[in-house]
Amino acid sequence: MEFEKMKSRLDHLLESQRHGELRGALMMLNEVDIAEYMQTLDKDKLLMVFRILPKDISSDVFAYMDNDQRQTLIESIGDTEVAKLVDDMFIDDAVDFLEELPAGVVKRVLQNTDVKRRNLINQFLRYPENSAGSIMTIEYCEFHTGITVSQAMAELKRTGIDKETIYTLYIIDDQRHLVGIVPLRKMILADDSTLVDALMDTGVISVTTLDDQETVAESVRKYDLMSIPVVDTEGRLVGIITVDDIVDVIEEENTEDFEKMAALVPSDSEYLKTSPFKLALNRIPWLLVLMVSAMFTGGIITSFEGLLNSSAVGIILTSCIPMMMDTGGNCGSQVSTLVIRGMALGEIEFRDLPRVLWKELRVAVLVGAILALVNFVRLLAFGGAGITPIISFVVAISMFATVLFAKTIGAVLPMVAKKAHLDPALMASPLITTIVDACSLTILFSIATALLTF
Amino acid sequence: MEFEKMKSRLDHLLESQRHGELRGALMMLNEVDIAEYMQTLDKDKLLMVFRILPKDISSDVFAYMDNDQRQTLIESIGDTEVAKLVDDMFIDDAVDFLEELPAGVVKRVLQNTDVKRRNLINQFLRYPENSAGSIMTIEYCEFHTGITVSQAMAELKRTGIDKETIYTLYIIDDQRHLVGIVPLRKMILADDSTLVDALMDTGVISVTTLDDQETVAESVRKYDLMSIPVVDTEGRLVGIITVDDIVDVIEEENTEDFEKMAALVPSDSEYLKTSPFKLALNRIPWLLVLMVSAMFTGGIITSFEGLLNSSAVGIILTSCIPMMMDTGGNCGSQVSTLVIRGMALGEIEFRDLPRVLWKELRVAVLVGAILALVNFVRLLAFGGAGITPIISFVVAISMFATVLFAKTIGAVLPMVAKKAHLDPALMASPLITTIVDACSLTILFSIATALLTF
Repeated sequence: MEFEKMKSRLDHLLESQRHGELRGALMMLNEVDIAEYMQTLDKDKLLMVFRILPKDISSDVFAYMDNDQRQTLIESIGDTEVAKLVDDMFIDDAVDFLEELPAGVVKRVLQNTDVKRRNLINQFLRYPENSAGSIMTIEYCEFHTGITVSQAMAELKRTGIDKETIYTLYIIDDQRHLVGIVPLRKMILADDSTLVDALMDTGVISVTTLDDQETVAESVRKYDLMSIPVVDTEGRLVGIITVDDIVDVIEEENTEDFEKMAALVPSDSEYLKTSPFKLALNRIPWLLVLMVSAMFTGGIITSFEGLLNSSAVGIILTSCIPMMMDTGGNCGSQVSTLVIRGMALGEIEFRDLPRVLWKELRVAVLVGAILALVNFVRLLAFGGAGITPIISFVVAISMFATVLFAKTIGAVLPMVAKKAHLDPALMASPLITTIVDACSLTILFSIATALLTF
Repeated sequence: MEFEKMKSRLDHLLESQRHGELRGALMMLNEVDIAEYMQTLDKDKLLMVFRILPKDISSDVFAYMDNDQRQTLIESIGDTEVAKLVDDMFIDDAVDFLEELPAGVVKRVLQNTDVKRRNLINQFLRYPENSAGSIMTIEYCEFHTGITVSQAMAELKRTGIDKETIYTLYIIDDQRHLVGIVPLRKMILADDSTLVDALMDTGVISVTTLDDQETVAESVRKYDLMSIPVVDTEGRLVGIITVDDIVDVIEEENTEDFEKMAALVPSDSEYLKTSPFKLALNRIPWLLVLMVSAMFTGGIITSFEGLLNSSAVGIILTSCIPMMMDTGGNCGSQVSTLVIRGMALGEIEFRDLPRVLWKELRVAVLVGAILALVNFVRLLAFGGAGITPIISFVVAISMFATVLFAKTIGAVLPMVAKKAHLDPALMASPLITTIVDACSLTILFSIATALLTF
């Protein structure tokens, strides 16, 4: 059903106070859709719908609501009720939620949860932001070595309901070291008396609690995993991360790269929910840095004042400034984007630098020659009075040199940045554009000075 | 183990012809790692290792190899052996592989597979590129309504080994219409005599064969699914898509957006494996379009020749060209990136245009004021001889107007593009930069003409 249609029906039931029917209707819906519907409600209606929700799905719906709505809601319900919600959520969702709350509220909520869970949550809140530890869940199925398939299946029936996934079973030894995994599929296909050890896959791909979420995502993507175990520094199993959370991590990391490449300070919050003041703060730093850099480019123009003020040639060269700057910038960011993306996906390593350079050199010769030719012909044919073959030649050869330079710097800079443990995306389009701008104008005016002033 | 270490050990076994040991070593490795190792081998060694591989994993390894390697390999082994490989692969992997081969080879390979599978593969090859049909698999578990849990589990044990996932069971009626899904978890936790109908979730999120893979990815991400069923236009179940394939789709779509936003014609192939000629072809179209646009910006400069040739003021204004162009371009692409990304993630819709505009107006006033102020002070303090307060004021107010304009166009253009069913990413950075360039210079020179020429 269309969202708008669903919403109008639910709104109707809500406004006419038909709570029984509303509850029935909500039961038929996916938790994600209910959360989406609740986003559209004001405070009073939000609270009313939340109270009407069947209790067994309310914590799921709560986990899918966005943070503003959740804050609104917990301000209206009692601390014990909030604590109940936190108890019912998977630990990773609960931690996500608590991380966004003011410290005072977190303390109050945690006072009402039970001691064991409180200690656990506190431990999670201490993991570094974006580390595997901070996004993992502890609701997984573990078994000790030496158990049979039928014993394991019986245990699964007893405890499986509370696990985030039961489709991969983790096998540990007496010191809780992870020794292997068994896909549930193998258990189902095996005989009851088989030992799980015999079904176990020991070449387990795992991550540690302190690994960055980007590393986790890379492993999950590379090995097509449904979940990945998280171990502590001594190799003891402490949690798992499921692929649905990895999908969110991947989108988050991509958004961060998009932002950096557009000269923005990365931000976790949704655009529409960010205040103009915060948005401005994210944008000003790089704008200022790049503006000041561009002033130096302006300085290059001033230093060629003599050339530019010689009237006829001067205005022709000046009118070429936008074209040289834009084309150089575009050439540079084309390469840097491909290289940054290639590195993010693990397709390009630092050791490939010579291959990348040799490739770009050949591309640059092809692209540069075509752009130079177009310029030469264009200026001669449509350039108007004052254009001589030599001026056309100066512009064309400058274009060729600019393309060559832009492609080189666009390839080298992100790779060197990565090698120096800087974020390659930060080196991307805007910074490269600024560097190429300065150099393209220097190239143009220097060649012009050499060939035109006699 | 580190890849380099693993490789050197395998290389050693391979070179000293210890095939038994090599086979044992390969058995201990993940298929993905074996495929990665095989990428590093030349033709003869590649073939040797492939022959040594245990038969039950060779088709998995083959599915993870890259396309050049696979082509090399199938040229060396017989058509019947290739057909055997294709028979052993999951249908989605087989189709992926065949899609990349020359038509003649596909025909030869298919002649050796069995009739039923050949017809199936041909049907898959007819789905549009990047449609749900083209990426789905048919190895899923389906049951008719009315079956009990113990019957279903027995059936699973019999057929589950060949399925891509057994963790979601699809329930169909007599006309093969999808009526519900049952997570395997529920079956395991339920009593043997329960009817699967009773466990069934009927609010199934599904896609149709012709839906674009981007739509599929959006649903999987939104609803945190492990797999999604694919139905034909009559609602009959024809396949499923698992989340590991969706992870690849997400990265592919992101790469496409990165490429479009960097003025590249999107390409499916890996950077290092693309020829310079092909790379140049992907880059030249947009470079030409944007270069020609920038020539018009140059025309604006020429049209203000009178102003710019009045020596003292002229060179100051000319030296401001890079700063105005760069800052305007950066402001525009900051907004367009946020808006494009927001739309890709479903956070921003066309109906939000007024909200976006109102937000950007306020951001622009804040950002514009700061950048204008910095310029005013900088010019007065360090601008050197010839700078008067009025010139500083002209530059500052032009900067303010440029920021305002750039933010507006950066917000509006991608949203309007989407509404007009054009790709918003195509409207991004480079195009917006070019438009903003032209306008920022017009603003600067017009204000200068109005205030400075008396």
